Amino acid sequence: MSLRTLTNNSITWTDLRKPTAGDIERLREQFPFFHPLDLEDCLSHLERPKIDEYENYLFIVMHFPVFNKATRRLGSGEMDIFIGRGFLVTVTDGILKPLVDDFDDCEMDEVIRRQFMGRGSYYLLYMLIDDLVDYCFPIVDKENHNTERIEETIFDGDARELVREISIIRRNLINFRRTIKPQMKIIASLERKDWEFLRGDLDVYWGDVSDHIVQIWERLEDLWEVVEGLSTTLESLTSNRINEVMKILTIFSVIMLPLSVISGIYGMNLSRLPLASHPLSFMIIIGFMVAIVVGMLTYFRREGWL
Amino acid sequence: MSLRTLTNNSITWTDLRKPTAGDIERLREQFPFFHPLDLEDCLSHLERPKIDEYENYLFIVMHFPVFNKATRRLGSGEMDIFIGRGFLVTVTDGILKPLVDDFDDCEMDEVIRRQFMGRGSYYLLYMLIDDLVDYCFPIVDKENHNTERIEETIFDGDARELVREISIIRRNLINFRRTIKPQMKIIASLERKDWEFLRGDLDVYWGDVSDHIVQIWERLEDLWEVVEGLSTTLESLTSNRINEVMKILTIFSVIMLPLSVISGIYGMNLSRLPLASHPLSFMIIIGFMVAIVVGMLTYFRREGWL
Amino acid sequence: MSLRTLTNNSITWTDLRKPTAGDIERLREQFPFFHPLDLEDCLSHLERPKIDEYENYLFIVMHFPVFNKATRRLGSGEMDIFIGRGFLVTVTDGILKPLVDDFDDCEMDEVIRRQFMGRGSYYLLYMLIDDLVDYCFPIVDKENHNTERIEETIFDGDARELVREISIIRRNLINFRRTIKPQMKIIASLERKDWEFLRGDLDVYWGDVSDHIVQIWERLEDLWEVVEGLSTTLESLTSNRINEVMKILTIFSVIMLPLSVISGIYGMNLSRLPLASHPLSFMIIIGFMVAIVVGMLTYFRREGWL
Amino acid sequence: MSLRTLTNNSITWTDLRKPTAGDIERLREQFPFFHPLDLEDCLSHLERPKIDEYENYLFIVMHFPVFNKATRRLGSGEMDIFIGRGFLVTVTDGILKPLVDDFDDCEMDEVIRRQFMGRGSYYLLYMLIDDLVDYCFPIVDKENHNTERIEETIFDGDARELVREISIIRRNLINFRRTIKPQMKIIASLERKDWEFLRGDLDVYWGDVSDHIVQIWERLEDLWEVVEGLSTTLESLTSNRINEVMKILTIFSVIMLPLSVISGIYGMNLSRLPLASHPLSFMIIIGFMVAIVVGMLTYFRREGWL
Amino acid sequence: MSLRTLTNNSITWTDLRKPTAGDIERLREQFPFFHPLDLEDCLSHLERPKIDEYENYLFIVMHFPVFNKATRRLGSGEMDIFIGRGFLVTVTDGILKPLVDDFDDCEMDEVIRRQFMGRGSYYLLYMLIDDLVDYCFPIVDKENHNTERIEETIFDGDARELVREISIIRRNLINFRRTIKPQMKIIASLERKDWEFLRGDLDVYWGDVSDHIVQIWERLEDLWEVVEGLSTTLESLTSNRINEVMKILTIFSVIMLPLSVISGIYGMNLSRLPLASHPLSFMIIIGFMVAIVVGMLTYFRREGWL
Repeated sequence: MSLRTLTNNSITWTDLRKPTAGDIERLREQFPFFHPLDLEDCLSHLERPKIDEYENYLFIVMHFPVFNKATRRLGSGEMDIFIGRGFLVTVTDGILKPLVDDFDDCEMDEVIRRQFMGRGSYYLLYMLIDDLVDYCFPIVDKENHNTERIEETIFDGDARELVREISIIRRNLINFRRTIKPQMKIIASLERKDWEFLRGDLDVYWGDVSDHIVQIWERLEDLWEVVEGLSTTLESLTSNRINEVMKILTIFSVIMLPLSVISGIYGMNLSRLPLASHPLSFMIIIGFMVAIVVGMLTYFRREGWL
Repeated sequence: MSLRTLTNNSITWTDLRKPTAGDIERLREQFPFFHPLDLEDCLSHLERPKIDEYENYLFIVMHFPVFNKATRRLGSGEMDIFIGRGFLVTVTDGILKPLVDDFDDCEMDEVIRRQFMGRGSYYLLYMLIDDLVDYCFPIVDKENHNTERIEETIFDGDARELVREISIIRRNLINFRRTIKPQMKIIASLERKDWEFLRGDLDVYWGDVSDHIVQIWERLEDLWEVVEGLSTTLESLTSNRINEVMKILTIFSVIMLPLSVISGIYGMNLSRLPLASHPLSFMIIIGFMVAIVVGMLTYFRREGWL
Repeated sequence: MSLRTLTNNSITWTDLRKPTAGDIERLREQFPFFHPLDLEDCLSHLERPKIDEYENYLFIVMHFPVFNKATRRLGSGEMDIFIGRGFLVTVTDGILKPLVDDFDDCEMDEVIRRQFMGRGSYYLLYMLIDDLVDYCFPIVDKENHNTERIEETIFDGDARELVREISIIRRNLINFRRTIKPQMKIIASLERKDWEFLRGDLDVYWGDVSDHIVQIWERLEDLWEVVEGLSTTLESLTSNRINEVMKILTIFSVIMLPLSVISGIYGMNLSRLPLASHPLSFMIIIGFMVAIVVGMLTYFRREGWL
Repeated sequence: MSLRTLTNNSITWTDLRKPTAGDIERLREQFPFFHPLDLEDCLSHLERPKIDEYENYLFIVMHFPVFNKATRRLGSGEMDIFIGRGFLVTVTDGILKPLVDDFDDCEMDEVIRRQFMGRGSYYLLYMLIDDLVDYCFPIVDKENHNTERIEETIFDGDARELVREISIIRRNLINFRRTIKPQMKIIASLERKDWEFLRGDLDVYWGDVSDHIVQIWERLEDLWEVVEGLSTTLESLTSNRINEVMKILTIFSVIMLPLSVISGIYGMNLSRLPLASHPLSFMIIIGFMVAIVVGMLTYFRREGWL
Repeated sequence: MSLRTLTNNSITWTDLRKPTAGDIERLREQFPFFHPLDLEDCLSHLERPKIDEYENYLFIVMHFPVFNKATRRLGSGEMDIFIGRGFLVTVTDGILKPLVDDFDDCEMDEVIRRQFMGRGSYYLLYMLIDDLVDYCFPIVDKENHNTERIEETIFDGDARELVREISIIRRNLINFRRTIKPQMKIIASLERKDWEFLRGDLDVYWGDVSDHIVQIWERLEDLWEVVEGLSTTLESLTSNRINEVMKILTIFSVIMLPLSVISGIYGMNLSRLPLASHPLSFMIIIGFMVAIVVGMLTYFRREGWL
């Protein structure tokens, strides 16, 4: 069930999702001229994209960002492609949603199938990569949206939560850039190079994809700067809050400690305490205390602490 | 009402503000050779500027910074342009003030109209872009002014307010640079390229606009450095203030706590308290306390804390 | 025992581990045309890799990362190579595990020996360097794994331990990059240059090694960014924790200090204390204290501290 | 009085300081071929230097740093220059001291006048710019000196004052670099280009000026790094001081608070206090307190806090 | 005594240490074709190295790092060189130890003299610069060693001392790089250029010196990164320590303050204190206090503070 093939005009699109060794074996039978190493690559995870050129086909490995809603982390999904005159083979983990949707739509709906597959295998490849690249925009938008939410709450929000949010976005941006960067070279190669076995004249289309991926890259760069700025702002705010809290503690302690000492002195069990038996002693001492409080408050006000 | 046209000599300037689908339809009727995709673009918001070349006209998308006084945030406004021999079409949201003013002035005042439209459509485009670029200078000045105000108050102002101000300027500078940067390429293209259907010989003029936008860019770079420096200074000041406040609290606590303990000891309800019944007990204890205070103050002075 | 030689077809592989002056002397006898300076270099530690070209052989110095499990620090091991038609000499400290294993395997197992040595000395060199480069991947993986562990525990872990972990990874990444960077040039030279005395046609192989080492480099760059991000996050978290702790202390002190002062006042040994002999005096005072506590808590709640 | 002219051989040097519209009008009469826009520029302040080439003269705008002793801030002064065969016109605010001095010296002293004006207008321009560039060195030295003073006092000085000093130097360096940077291009143009109406063969001289201004630039770069380093050091020192102060407060509080509680307990007005009527009660309690103090001190010493 | 000359074969080496105006005069007599400006330069301190080419000699100014043991600061020493066919003149402050040693050795020992001076003046220059460059390695090693010592003690050492050490190393690295950087260009010039009056064929030798100085530069870059990392680590550690100290203070205060208040309440001199005359009042109150302590400790344990 995981190896499915669509045919339109004279081209076939074979799609493998989460291929087993058996699926690869069946693929080998169908396309005996595929290089064994490429078929092997389809079963393992590759870190970096590449284009391997052969006499009558290309083997392309690309990666696209995948957002995991549960962990809110951005990962990447791999797509392995065999393309030659009249055929396209896509091998994936099935987590690249646009590709899955495109295949399913082509399978269900003949109109869409003609639209995708009616102009040769190279055009079909363009359609798929274009969809995959365009699918990055909503992910950038999501990160952008999260950044803006942080921006709105940074002066009032829970600092701990904000640190966590910033660290998630920062990590996602790093992963995003790591995924996108090498794809830019691959797409630029597709734009520039010509292969005999692939119908050309798609330069304008690839140029368009290339523009889009550069746009994504530049927006990621901008976002990175914004996030770094927010991180600095949060740092400054926290320092400032520490300062504010410290001031309150200090003002209170500096006012209360002398009062404690004075009352402590008059609480000593000595045989003679000056003033202690004076009828207004309480009023005098309280007056003295009030004077200290007022004096301290005046001092702090003059220092600009209040 | 939103599609308005001015005519002078043999050129027409059509201006659309906040166009509806109906307006675009009327534009299509007027200029049937406009590419449908370009007309579509006029109804949506594009992230990046571009120049699309056609046989007999150019479609240009540009963005310019717009300052929102209410939020104090810097955004950007889009201008879509169709230009060919004898005509110029500008499509905007109506938030680019210089463009709005230029059109209104040309509509009202024949002298200005001749000045703008008397030398062909390409010159008219130059006049508009020149005004839009020059309008950036007061915005840079405003940010520069805000930066200088921060600089003046940084040693005495409310730190929380300063953090907020710095974060607003930093964000505005990021947005400003993001808006300006791609326009530099567009204007450089206008300076270098020649199109058959546009009267040339405006290189000097475009060179001038190009110089201006580079000046704006460099001033933004300088401002960025100044703001980063202020941010660091504020950080250092806050740390330093925390240190100062901590010192005061510590000095006070270190002096008062022993006094509290001594008076507390003499406040114990024990049957025998040494010295308690001595006639000078109060004086002795107070003297001891004063000695502690003086000793502590001497210590702190020697440590350079006072 | 430390100078061992393998022969296959017409090529010999001589391996020296921790060579003594005597070993080098014996090497000199065997290969009288080796430059004395190169032989001297084999006895000392060189900081930088190099390729010295001679009429009929190359002298190559390379370094590869070595992970010291005890200290968890990443160091580097040196490999000195003499290569010419029909012979390869490797001189090491014996700490480059892949090289040691390769030699031992070739010595033990004829199949492996044929595989390594069956296609000339230049191919043998490629096999060794390929193994050494590939051995870097698990080291990158280990650092990557450590980074991810930090990432998982950063919000709950022991901050002091996290600082230590981050500082170890940072140092290891610096050392790793310092070791890898100059090797990239050496391998690029091997890829580009041709030597008469070495059978060529290995460009594809060297290109492959080159790709791998660039991949390692790029992964190190990515890791560096992640680690810097974690360092910033930890800073922010610590500042935030200080703020939290300060708040708790302040809230407690600000509530308790006035209560202390009130009870202190009523603990004074004065002849007349207002209310003191009132039958409900205790209740009144406690009520007053409760009012203060409630008031303070209300204030802090309104300030968003609780 | 503000428009003054010197003549020597066949060249005239006209100097305007703080020109009024009237002065400019008189200049226009004297040099009717000056472009009106250039004359206008002389009355306003320009942000960026430039060289405008005309058929028979150059209009040059340059800026040089000016140190304001009162505010200790570094600003810049503008010099507008018209130069052609046989004449040089300098228009300034009169705040560029070297230019003012040069003119006054030439006016007073014939020997100096011959030295400056004896080799044509282009050589005179070189002499002036050379003096203006060389005048930057003492300003760099002053900033360097201030930096070194900070360096010497950073471990003992008043942190608040140091923050202020660093922020002033940082700002001055930004302004200095902003002023110097575009002049480098202007001087490089003077070095490379040739104008028919100016006697050439001054390449070596302009090269010399170019070297000097590059030297200034590089010293500013070095100073910037030093100042950034000092800023980081100050940050670290302040953090460290906060830590030290916190330790002292904590040690004191942790020792004193239990003593307070103990004495407080024995100060309670309960009918039965254990030990209270014991003849050695005071000694026992004080002994207990001393034990706590000794215990705490031992603990802190073991923790490495003392 | 300060002007000394060595002769070997047909070349002379004249060495001046701390030259006086008189020494320079004598040099002028000996070499009447030296440019007066160059001779003047020998008496002053130049900031930047240079090569001035003349018809029959070169005037070279170079700087090399000098370590001042007393202040532990890295400064630089200047060497002014006149070189032509058959002669070399070196003018220094006498603080460049390798040069001083080389001259003294050549003076004392004929073998060494022949080794240095037997192959022409250009080779002699190479020998001297090679020694001066190689002398940088132990200085780099010293800074590297200091860095490693910081690395070892950073988790336990005195933070104030560590800040000081880091700031010294950072400053030394800045000075070192400032000294080395421009020399790289000078040596590259010596490697590339050919002068008629100097026997060439030393390209390999100069290439070697060039390699060495680049190695030094790269090691300085690596060290800089390590030191920046250590600075960040120290920052994090200090923040963390502040947090730890704050926690201890807070825990203690939060436990002790309520006890103080309770004992204070029972210390009030009221006519009626509930429970006060109860025979177990002391036990009840102490029990209540213990309950508070246990409760607080439980709370802190659950919060992960203990």
